[in-house]
Amino acid sequence: MIFPTLSDIQSAHKRIKPFIHQTPVLTSQQLNKIFDCVLFFKCENFQRVGAFKFRGATNAVLQLTDNEKKSGVVTHSSGNHAAALALAATMNGVKPYIVMPESAPVVKKNAVAGYGAEITFCKPTLQAREETTRIIIEKTGATLVHPYDNFNVICGQGTAAMELLDEIKGLDIVVAPIGGGGLMSGTSTAVKNTNDKIKVVGAEPLNANDAWKSFTTGILTPSVNPLTVADGLLTSLSELTFSIVRKNVDQIFTVKEESIVECMLLVWERMKIIIEPSSATVLAAVKENPDYFRGKKTGLIISGGNVDFRKLPF
Amino acid sequence: MIFPTLSDIQSAHKRIKPFIHQTPVLTSQQLNKIFDCVLFFKCENFQRVGAFKFRGATNAVLQLTDNEKKSGVVTHSSGNHAAALALAATMNGVKPYIVMPESAPVVKKNAVAGYGAEITFCKPTLQAREETTRIIIEKTGATLVHPYDNFNVICGQGTAAMELLDEIKGLDIVVAPIGGGGLMSGTSTAVKNTNDKIKVVGAEPLNANDAWKSFTTGILTPSVNPLTVADGLLTSLSELTFSIVRKNVDQIFTVKEESIVECMLLVWERMKIIIEPSSATVLAAVKENPDYFRGKKTGLIISGGNVDFRKLPF
Repeated sequence: MIFPTLSDIQSAHKRIKPFIHQTPVLTSQQLNKIFDCVLFFKCENFQRVGAFKFRGATNAVLQLTDNEKKSGVVTHSSGNHAAALALAATMNGVKPYIVMPESAPVVKKNAVAGYGAEITFCKPTLQAREETTRIIIEKTGATLVHPYDNFNVICGQGTAAMELLDEIKGLDIVVAPIGGGGLMSGTSTAVKNTNDKIKVVGAEPLNANDAWKSFTTGILTPSVNPLTVADGLLTSLSELTFSIVRKNVDQIFTVKEESIVECMLLVWERMKIIIEPSSATVLAAVKENPDYFRGKKTGLIISGGNVDFRKLPF
Repeated sequence: MIFPTLSDIQSAHKRIKPFIHQTPVLTSQQLNKIFDCVLFFKCENFQRVGAFKFRGATNAVLQLTDNEKKSGVVTHSSGNHAAALALAATMNGVKPYIVMPESAPVVKKNAVAGYGAEITFCKPTLQAREETTRIIIEKTGATLVHPYDNFNVICGQGTAAMELLDEIKGLDIVVAPIGGGGLMSGTSTAVKNTNDKIKVVGAEPLNANDAWKSFTTGILTPSVNPLTVADGLLTSLSELTFSIVRKNVDQIFTVKEESIVECMLLVWERMKIIIEPSSATVLAAVKENPDYFRGKKTGLIISGGNVDFRKLPF
């Protein structure tokens, strides 16, 4: 198993820079006062397609050989990775095939279709997704770009934390959400290899706490039918992301559903920016663990801003 | 009747600059594509208290004599001006008395209380507001800072457009919402005295179209019990703001309720920023009048971002 290095992430950043948005790092005096620490929000909700996923997808597409490009790319995703791969592919003249669960939010379905992807819907189970994907690969020869169990994707995702560390000096802690672990693998690699004194913390819904379980027991333990408003965090760690998380991450905090919704609304109301429930887990981790964060300079990776406003969780 | 000049607005800007946020001007390739023009969003939703009103309130408070400061300030407002005056006053050691309609959104009531104001609730009619305010003035000697029928307030509101014109060159059109006309008076003064070739357009809910009626007939015609989701635009023009609007404004477009909600959601979804219904009127004006805006470099004054998420209009 080959782990990405800081140098891999730096190379990815050079590669994807012409395509991505350099997203802002925002602060809020009101939220600092509420949580008694100094928060820096790395706003990937302002990234293309509204999520950090565009970084990893772009890095993966740009690493394809010319021959691979001709056959297209395929993935299965609950939404943000699908939109990201669709746009990254079409921007580079590559055909994207996307397998999506029927249950994905309408706003995400529309976004993926709008980026010119050929969508195949399937039942919302990992098995159905994988089977449908396999069939498409057989038919088209497309290259699978897995949402997180992919070296190039992980390197791309790590560039958000790299930009955060470049911009904000002296951080004590960096928090990122954990779903499949792609973002956390990239984030933790970037952080620990820049300054290993910075604590790396994962935020995970209590209702989808496979990473916490795996991290705590040392045994990879996937979630079974998790149910959370943080629909980007339903997936479970892979062998690769689990190994990277075990090596780099200091702590995983699970957060309650009501904290996720409350913190999402708090950001909407006070900062006037849209973040999705999955992103609100990082602030929920701060809220539920005041002693850990008090007085600390804390970077929060805000993973995305794709919300289905016709189906709000409050 | 003395009209503000560009120089008055420039002086106001120097005065309030240490207190206000210089808000960003954002763009969206997606919205430019949808509306076939080039839009520049002057984002006063990121202003202190979440609205442009902080500019005018601060300018008014800073112009008080030392004696006036001792007796405090008072106003009646549907929300944003109340919060703005409360914060502007307390930041400068002045006591704020606020008269609010009982029907104001909870988020706005909480904000005003949080800024240390003494709140008096009243029935949601102009008469009840004015009577309650009069009683407070009698008791305390506080200075009335009217939400819009006030020279210093108008000068403060004009600084948002001034910043927009400083930052973005070559605008063809500037659009601002019209409620009581304070923002539009300041905006149109700033724009027309900088470059009188730039068209100044007002956006007003069809359901609260007193400005459109007054502008079209030449006779000041207040709204009677207007009902619109754009709760910041329920107020009617005053003699002063009507006179300034008549002199400077090229066009007032009324917009439908469904356009307001649709455009608000569009900004939330595509730009990932929270704007309030009153602000969405400016984009609704673009949407409903494609021939007027096609291909034009258009500045939109996004007036605020205070939304009661527990009481959404969709």
